[in-house]
Amino acid sequence: MVVVLAGGVGGARFLSGLVRIVAPAEVTAIVNVGDDVDVSGLRVCPDLDTITYRLAGVVHPSQQWGRDHESFVVSGELRRFGHPDWFTLGDRDLAVHLHRTLRLRQGAPLSRVTDEIRRAFGVEVRLLPATDDPLTTTVTTRDGRTLGFQEYWVRERAAPEVDHVTAVGADDAQPAPGVVEAIEDADVVLFAPSNPVVSLGPILAVEQIRSAVARTRAPVVGVSPIIGGRVVLGMADRLLPSVGAEVSATGVARHLADLLDGWIVDTQDRDAVDTIRGLGIECQATDTMMDDPGIAGALASTCLDVASRVRGAAA
Amino acid sequence: MVVVLAGGVGGARFLSGLVRIVAPAEVTAIVNVGDDVDVSGLRVCPDLDTITYRLAGVVHPSQQWGRDHESFVVSGELRRFGHPDWFTLGDRDLAVHLHRTLRLRQGAPLSRVTDEIRRAFGVEVRLLPATDDPLTTTVTTRDGRTLGFQEYWVRERAAPEVDHVTAVGADDAQPAPGVVEAIEDADVVLFAPSNPVVSLGPILAVEQIRSAVARTRAPVVGVSPIIGGRVVLGMADRLLPSVGAEVSATGVARHLADLLDGWIVDTQDRDAVDTIRGLGIECQATDTMMDDPGIAGALASTCLDVASRVRGAAA
Repeated sequence: MVVVLAGGVGGARFLSGLVRIVAPAEVTAIVNVGDDVDVSGLRVCPDLDTITYRLAGVVHPSQQWGRDHESFVVSGELRRFGHPDWFTLGDRDLAVHLHRTLRLRQGAPLSRVTDEIRRAFGVEVRLLPATDDPLTTTVTTRDGRTLGFQEYWVRERAAPEVDHVTAVGADDAQPAPGVVEAIEDADVVLFAPSNPVVSLGPILAVEQIRSAVARTRAPVVGVSPIIGGRVVLGMADRLLPSVGAEVSATGVARHLADLLDGWIVDTQDRDAVDTIRGLGIECQATDTMMDDPGIAGALASTCLDVASRVRGAAA
Repeated sequence: MVVVLAGGVGGARFLSGLVRIVAPAEVTAIVNVGDDVDVSGLRVCPDLDTITYRLAGVVHPSQQWGRDHESFVVSGELRRFGHPDWFTLGDRDLAVHLHRTLRLRQGAPLSRVTDEIRRAFGVEVRLLPATDDPLTTTVTTRDGRTLGFQEYWVRERAAPEVDHVTAVGADDAQPAPGVVEAIEDADVVLFAPSNPVVSLGPILAVEQIRSAVARTRAPVVGVSPIIGGRVVLGMADRLLPSVGAEVSATGVARHLADLLDGWIVDTQDRDAVDTIRGLGIECQATDTMMDDPGIAGALASTCLDVASRVRGAAA
């Protein structure tokens, strides 16, 4: 059993590679919910949906999130009522949010609804939200404003200088059913190349998840989302300084060092391998730019190789 | 000031004629809510929406309800989740239900939300739901099943034999704010050619509305929805027997006799004029087939003429 901690686009691409080399039913993804947001009264879970759509083969191919063949009729009409239009919902996407919102209002926990949705899309990978409880990422800017993550990221295009990021509710959040068990029973735990602050951060901010990862006997291997000192996608570069981490493959490894047994860096960062090994973390350089599923598959394979090596060294 | 009690398609067509001869801002429509239904967690108000779309000029031209240039992307996707698909929501239409549902959940009463929606569509006629309280039409069949109105009408295509129709909640429902005042202040009260049982019936089942219509000094004039013993549209013919009324222009006049001062029948029913006058109801025959807005306008004009005649006779 392989467990993957994952955010949105990076997590989705990584998982699409992993299922080329591991049976999908053997994979459990524990997914960030800190980005979740209510839009026009609908509950939107961007990371869960991006992963579902990618694994179902219905993700928008260039955008890499949202649905393929998407239309925007409902959003266009909603403008009539003065709804904020900075977070635009596509029609196909909206059907998922509508179903989710209905089921949540009927009292179903997010984990159950998530399972229904991934099955409706024929996704065999088990998807678990980190928690069924309220857990919301906020970004406090240097000029003293506290924004919801989507306000910061989508509405303000990550322009404001960030003072700190908070996983609001994490202290009271319990892991969703199955999360701790999946980590305990895993043969290997992987960190997708997702944003360490706003994707992996909120998952690991749930204390019982962090402690399960810390104590699991399975090797814990991550992939650097930073290549050559630059973020591959997203805006980890804007946020790493807020947690005191350097924007580099080494910086992120240091930030996660207490949890990691292995760390995969891009070939561009091969010079960092020795430094990272010096932190007591097994390290290997490979191609981490997942431009196609073949590369993503090879990357996942490298992760499992490093995990075997760690396991062998421990034995 | 003209007040119109109205259901869906017939009410919408009648109002579109009325606003050709009366300034829209001088018109208040009191609209049936008994057909309202939750679909995929969204609050759908078919009669209010049909009237709004018609008056805004965005109704589906042949269907006469729902939106023009409609698409069904969201509904198509919802099938994935096994939602009942007998009540299909178009995408444009769905935006209205989404806004309404959001506002209702925020605590706004239906009357306020309705006002927001009609203004967003540029509709100048004031639209009032009969009540902000729960009021739901059910149809009990001869074989002993009790169905929601839309289940009976849309899902079962009005096939089952009807034993009786109930306006559930009517006993406890208060008129929406402004309804009683509008009737009290009206110069004339009109009954659109809407279904007497399931469109006008639920409105008049709210006791304070019925008594306001009964005691208003304004002439109360209605238009027969039955032409030549046949229903123009809808299924009044299936339901009139359940209230003991004959399926004829005279039968409906008798059913509403305690409220009516005047009754307009189609020229096909001109032979009924004397009979209806014998009930103490002023009656006139004219073209009531509202195939175009010009005919609807002439029909509305005839209603106002009859109202004047009634008023003159009373003076």
